[in-house]
Amino acid sequence: MSVIPLGGGPEFDRIRAIARRLGAHAAELGDDCALVELGATTLALSTDVSVEGVHFRREWITPQEIGWRATAAALSDLAATGASAIGVLVALTVPPAEQPPMFAALMEGVGAAVSASGGKVLGGDLSRGEAISLAITVVGTVERPVHRRGAQVGDRLWVTGQLGGARAALEAWNAGRTPLAGARERFAKPIPRIDAGRWLAEHGATAMLDVSDGLAGDVGHLAAASKVALVVDIGSLPLHPDITREAFAARETPGVFAARGGEDYELLVTMPREFSGSEAISMTCIGDVHPGTGVAFFEDGFELNISGYDHFA
Amino acid sequence: MSVIPLGGGPEFDRIRAIARRLGAHAAELGDDCALVELGATTLALSTDVSVEGVHFRREWITPQEIGWRATAAALSDLAATGASAIGVLVALTVPPAEQPPMFAALMEGVGAAVSASGGKVLGGDLSRGEAISLAITVVGTVERPVHRRGAQVGDRLWVTGQLGGARAALEAWNAGRTPLAGARERFAKPIPRIDAGRWLAEHGATAMLDVSDGLAGDVGHLAAASKVALVVDIGSLPLHPDITREAFAARETPGVFAARGGEDYELLVTMPREFSGSEAISMTCIGDVHPGTGVAFFEDGFELNISGYDHFA
Repeated sequence: MSVIPLGGGPEFDRIRAIARRLGAHAAELGDDCALVELGATTLALSTDVSVEGVHFRREWITPQEIGWRATAAALSDLAATGASAIGVLVALTVPPAEQPPMFAALMEGVGAAVSASGGKVLGGDLSRGEAISLAITVVGTVERPVHRRGAQVGDRLWVTGQLGGARAALEAWNAGRTPLAGARERFAKPIPRIDAGRWLAEHGATAMLDVSDGLAGDVGHLAAASKVALVVDIGSLPLHPDITREAFAARETPGVFAARGGEDYELLVTMPREFSGSEAISMTCIGDVHPGTGVAFFEDGFELNISGYDHFA
Repeated sequence: MSVIPLGGGPEFDRIRAIARRLGAHAAELGDDCALVELGATTLALSTDVSVEGVHFRREWITPQEIGWRATAAALSDLAATGASAIGVLVALTVPPAEQPPMFAALMEGVGAAVSASGGKVLGGDLSRGEAISLAITVVGTVERPVHRRGAQVGDRLWVTGQLGGARAALEAWNAGRTPLAGARERFAKPIPRIDAGRWLAEHGATAMLDVSDGLAGDVGHLAAASKVALVVDIGSLPLHPDITREAFAARETPGVFAARGGEDYELLVTMPREFSGSEAISMTCIGDVHPGTGVAFFEDGFELNISGYDHFA
């Protein structure tokens, strides 16, 4: 098997260990979606697990939002490949004391998120478990799949939407504060960029992934997979308006705060140099592709040393 | 949406509650696999979650066997639809203290099981969690899908392989005894009946599902989905040779013990009356399809009242 090179961190050490052990049993791992050619169609598949106490807490968001968020996170992998959604399968564990209304509320959120992306709930499984967890598998089709490995020297690096909102909500909750409404919305109901992903795939995207570990970590994955160096201008990042207070509390500049924020589910994409943006999609140019390896972050002319979020750190 | 009628029990009450809440967001639920038509191909998809402390314990089986067993359980849903395997996606949670070797060993078992069924590991996700859990999504293709709803009055009911082995291992462990080797093997390394499922689909199977909740429960699902009555001769069940001691300890006849045993992953199938068995597949005729509803179990001329296993009971 081949493993697409990944950036650093303990979670990625684990993925590498698994890939080595699987050997010939595994298809190529490391892209946002697995691709399977089936007649004239290419299937895009991905699975994503959300665990209570790791990815969310019940005190923060409603069961419907837990279901929406887990599903949006998984659908975001389809977006990052340029795929359309057929639907999702859901494996749910909940503590035995929970009653049917909790299951149904979680699944209502799942159903709403997949419906908003043009898909359906295709199937599921239930079990009791110590905590709520949702393993969401997304199924889609893609005409022109975009990988992480295709960035070319000379391309420019773009990002959709705004960054840092989800982290601002998280930091507020962790400090015992009430998040601002806009930040809370970004955490509780992220929008998978399915339409933007398809548009970018059709308009020449050379490499793409979704901002799930945080921009600072995700640019590292893109650079490693494409075997290029990336230079990122932190000063140009599109910032969510609700991050100011939390960035101040974290003693970070708003740009660094946003770059280290996970789970924005925006798309990070390299486009040919001549691409100058789109009226169809809110997107911002944040850097360039250079020969070499690794990522350099600059802000106000100074190079910064910043890293993303790792569930195992 | 439509929900395929299910048998009784709290787990099925939960599935019904979810189905009601999902409404138009969901495809038809309740069969072993979801079916998606894609050009000339029909995709078969299913997801299955295995949780430490619910489906297995680490004291009982090795990490490789945990991985194999979870994957075989999921692949068994493809078998029950008459599908071939393309591969699996795996969402894994493990306690934070576990090291990469544990992940890799679990995934080695996953890889071996999917490889033995002709598929590959297509992708996965990792998170920390309170306990080990594996949510396995299987992806396959099927030419002539078999549903639960197709049993016809006059058909005969058949089952592949032998029943009760997995339960014999489970009862031994729960009582602090060492299971017999054959029973342990049935629990730790069940074989998904992919080839048998395809053969049966090609040879006229009218309805099929896998024996996961226990034959006594699963015949109820088949009767409810097909809107027929089933009469099962417990005396004719093909018994695993290692169940005698555990059936005696449970104060059940071997036939009732086997009928109430879950997780054998054999196929329960209705075939037209003229079908007289196969040299290609080990299978046994255990009953008939009648007009009406529900299931009647007989042993030595007496009607019995028995039920299957429910994770939420």
